[in-house]
This record gives sequence, structure tokens and C-alpha cells, in this order.
Amino acid sequence: MSSARHDVLTIGNAIVDVIAHADEAFLAKFGVVKGSMTLIGADLAETLYAAMGPATIVSGGSAANTAVGVASLGGRGAYIGKIRNDSVGDIFAHDIRASGISFDTPRAVDGPATARCFVLVTPDGERTMNTYLGACQNLTEADIDPATVSGAKITYLEGYLWDPPAAKVAFRKAAEIAHAAGREVSLTLSDSFCVDRYRAEFRDLVCTGMVDLLFANEHELKSLYETADFETALAAVRSEARRAVVTRSEAGAIAVAGSETVSVPAFPIERLVDTTGAGDHFAAGYLFGHTTGRSPEAALRLGALAASHVIQTLGARPQVELKALAEENGLY
Amino acid sequence: MSSARHDVLTIGNAIVDVIAHADEAFLAKFGVVKGSMTLIGADLAETLYAAMGPATIVSGGSAANTAVGVASLGGRGAYIGKIRNDSVGDIFAHDIRASGISFDTPRAVDGPATARCFVLVTPDGERTMNTYLGACQNLTEADIDPATVSGAKITYLEGYLWDPPAAKVAFRKAAEIAHAAGREVSLTLSDSFCVDRYRAEFRDLVCTGMVDLLFANEHELKSLYETADFETALAAVRSEARRAVVTRSEAGAIAVAGSETVSVPAFPIERLVDTTGAGDHFAAGYLFGHTTGRSPEAALRLGALAASHVIQTLGARPQVELKALAEENGLY
Repeated sequence: MSSARHDVLTIGNAIVDVIAHADEAFLAKFGVVKGSMTLIGADLAETLYAAMGPATIVSGGSAANTAVGVASLGGRGAYIGKIRNDSVGDIFAHDIRASGISFDTPRAVDGPATARCFVLVTPDGERTMNTYLGACQNLTEADIDPATVSGAKITYLEGYLWDPPAAKVAFRKAAEIAHAAGREVSLTLSDSFCVDRYRAEFRDLVCTGMVDLLFANEHELKSLYETADFETALAAVRSEARRAVVTRSEAGAIAVAGSETVSVPAFPIERLVDTTGAGDHFAAGYLFGHTTGRSPEAALRLGALAASHVIQTLGARPQVELKALAEENGLY
Repeated sequence: MSSARHDVLTIGNAIVDVIAHADEAFLAKFGVVKGSMTLIGADLAETLYAAMGPATIVSGGSAANTAVGVASLGGRGAYIGKIRNDSVGDIFAHDIRASGISFDTPRAVDGPATARCFVLVTPDGERTMNTYLGACQNLTEADIDPATVSGAKITYLEGYLWDPPAAKVAFRKAAEIAHAAGREVSLTLSDSFCVDRYRAEFRDLVCTGMVDLLFANEHELKSLYETADFETALAAVRSEARRAVVTRSEAGAIAVAGSETVSVPAFPIERLVDTTGAGDHFAAGYLFGHTTGRSPEAALRLGALAASHVIQTLGARPQVELKALAEENGLY
């Protein structure tokens, strides 16, 4: 195995977030489930935007946020995702490159516009997402550059990639290249409704060993194993996955691998602003720790720290250098 | 005088802010003066954006921010400013309308793109602005709707309107319509370098009574009267202006009208994030108080409160309802 060019490659839906405050009545009016991610078409996207309050626009996309988190911690990150050659695509490309991430996926020159996620933040800080996938539909296996995949210590893929049909083929190709190069593959389950849509396929990825490291939050894990009991779900993932990291919001996080169990508390926060990106940044912290030879406990603590920062900001990208924050907290 | 449709009409350069953190070295590299507003062309805008860090995009424009502040306090606001029919223009139009402001200025269908301001926020929270005026160059007197002007209790104009050449004609037309309808006219000096560029014209507007209410910060006032001494500048504006409101950052603010003097302290803050929009929101609070029959002291206090909120957020638009904030603080 040659030396790695990147610590972490992430692959996902390339999305720009359009974030506004909203009340519960607004969610009810549009029939969206609080805390979840709903796919919407171009027409509903336009209707929803027109009805939303004044917005803040920040690049997003789950796996892209994770790559940015890795880079902010001092890791070497790369990203693969599909945008169009439009002004929203310009925003996405600028921000991810300005964050120090290698991003060379060819842009679509026609077809649907760059994806946007309309994020509604309720007064309790919870985020509800409505995603117009647009150009993400055009991510195909041709976009998976073998040198980039084999040059990364770990390739991290988002479950949301199961939504655009061609992307799952790209996902499998990336996983095969990574393993052929002796690298690791990681998957996040993304969202409990996403697990509902693709449960059998996700379990297959875990059971067959196509995924070495699984990320899930408590709700997603319970959905994967169709149980309301966390301990049952944890026992199931322990028996099926090589290694799994499970986040439980303010109850902290736990990593399991065979009989090994490591857990850490949540990192304390001053004020919850917006939960968008919490899971993405937990993964960033863990992946950075994991690929730089830190212990599972140290990796979990970095995850908890990164998540605690991003939920105190609007949007899913860090507003400070996470490396400096980790140093201040004696975690680097 | 018929009853007013709006409390405050503001007219200014319609701009979307692209905000990134930057260090002092970055400012030095681009030769920009910290804390000021510099006009840039399309080429430099592209170069600067490519070199900037990851950005947050929020609608801005000085007078537009003020209109939004007035509406957030519960006032009735209208806005006139020029955008193009492009995606950045869509962002501007969405946000100002979603904030409850009447905005009906016809969009340019060709010519330069909607204006963007590249805002660099240094670690001390100070903002340095680089503005590509674009479509603002096309604001003309034809865009000044007489019914809108005569239907507003006060028309507030930004000094920045002197930068796009055709806009000053629009400015004068608006002031004349307002006065003919028995309404008031207000001007903010905007920026000390802006005062440097147009000092004689601004003094003429004040001396001839075309402006009833002048807003300035300490630096702008000193620049207007070419003195380093604040008391000298204050005495000068007292003798020349009908009424002037002068802000002094953490030293509070003062309103003078003839021999009358009212001053208030700055409103305490927890954490300075970004000074962008401080002056705009001070004006919003004062204008709201002034047009709803509050005393100069009450109006100043509302200004100080609104400014204190916006400097604790990234960008120049409020993240909470200012009316509720004023109520919580016993100022409504």
C-alpha cells in the first residue's frame, strides 16, 4: 500500500444550504417531518423558498461538511460530488476549495441546477431539511477517480447517495477501489427515513464487509434493526459491523468493535443555535482521529468537540479552526 | 398631508453580502483599509472571491438593512434599490420581501449583475467591505415612485448613493417629493471615505435643509467637518443640521437639535461577532422610534439595542425579532 495523499475522501450529494428560522406551524403547513430530510422537486422548492423567511446561504451537503471538518482539524481531505456550472455551483466549489479540500469532480454543463437544501430551524434549534437534489442526480461511476479513492486512507460515503439512482453504482465502485488498494470504507446512515427507504441494502453493505466503519445516530440505528430498544440495536450492529460509531445527542457517543466498547459524554455547549451538521462533524472528528492513529476514545472526543462547535453556529460549516479549538481543549 | 402607508422608506444600493473570516495579512495583501468600504470592479471581485475563505451569504445593502430593522421592530418599511434579474438578485428580493418590506423597484434585464459586497471579518470583529456595485449603477430617477415616497413618514437615503452617478439624481428627486408631501428626509453619511469623496455635496444637503435628520458615526462627522476634535464637529453639525444622530461605538450615541442634546450609552453585549450593520441598525431603531412618536431618548435606546443585536451575529440582518427583543428589555 503506497503512502496516502489524503486522510479522508468523502463522497456525497453536493448541496448549498438555504437556512431560515421557522415555527412549527410552518412545518405543519408544508407537511414536513421535524428533524428529518425530505426530498422535494423543483416546483415545491420554488414554493417553499417563496414562503420562507429571510435566509442565510452556506455551503452544505452531509459528506462535504465532513470533509471540511476533517480539514479544519488539520487533516487532508478530498471530496467527490456533482454540481452544475451555475452560480449556486460556484458557491459550493468556492467554499469547499477555500476550506482546503481537493475537489475535482467535473461539473454538469446541462440538466438540473446545483442542489439546494432548504433548512428550517425551529426555535428549539432543531433543523428540518427539504432537499432539491438537482445536479446530484448526475453523479455516476465515471465521476469516481480511482487515483483519488486509492490515495485516501478512508473513503466515507453518505447513505443519502442511495437517493439519486446512479450514485449507488458510483458508491459501490468507490468501495471496491478502496478495498482493492487496501484502504478502508465508511458509511453514514444519514437519516432514519433514508434507512427506511434502503434498509435491506444498507444492512447488506454492513454484513458483507463492504463497509468497515459505520456511523449512525440512535434513531438511524434503531431504524436499521427495526427495534425501539437501543441495546437491542447496539447488540445487532456489534454482531454485524466491523466497527460502528453511534451518536446519541446530549447522551454522548459510543464506538463498538466486536467485544470492544468505548463511550464518551457529549461536549458541553453554551447555547444551541442550529443542529444542522452535528452528525457530519461528529464523523469528521472521529475520522480525523482514526486516520491519524489516535485511540477510539480520542477520536470520539474529537467528534464530540467538532459537533458541539457546529451546533452553536448557523449552518453546517465550522466558523473557527477546529484544530485550534481542539488544542485549547487539550484534545489535539 | 394624507395618512402614511409606511413609517420609513429607505433608498440605497441593493447588495448581497458575501462574508468570510480573514486575517490582517489578507487585508494588507489586497491593500484595503480596515473598517472601510472600497469600491471594486468585476475583475477584482472575482480575484478577491477566489482568494477568500469559505463564505456565508446574507442579503445586505446599508439602507436595505435599515428597512429590515424597522420592520423587525414592528414598523412599516419600504425599499427602493436596483437589482438585476439574476440569481443573486433573486436572493436579495426574496430576503427583503420575506422581511415584510415593500420592494417594487423594476429589475434591470441587462447590464451588470446584481451587486455583491465581499465582507472580510477580522478576528477583532471589525468588518472591511469591498463592493462591486454592478446593477446599482442603473438606479435612476425613473425608479423613484412618487406615491411610495409621499406615502412614507420619512425617506432615508444612504450617502453611498453618491457612488453610482445616476443615483444622486434619484436621491434629489426623492427628497423633493418627500418635502412637497410634507414628509421628512434623512441621510446617513455611510463611511468616512465616502464623506471624503463627496464632502461639499453632503454639507450642501445638510445646510440647505434638503436633509432633516442626519446620521453619522464619529469618524464620518469628523471627516465631514475636517476636524480631529469631536466636540468641534458636534458644534458644527449642531449649527448646520436640523437634527443629527451621532453614534460612537462603545461610547454610545448622541442626538442634537439646536440647543437640545440627548445621549445614551451603548447597549451591553456578550460577544462581538461582526460589526457589519451596526450603523444601519442604529438608524433603524432611531427611525422607528422617531416615526412612531417616541422621544429622542427612547429612539436612541432602540437604536442602541438594535445595533447591539446585529453585531453579535454574522451579517447585517437580525436573527431574532427585534420587537420581541425590545419588549424583553422594556424598551417597547
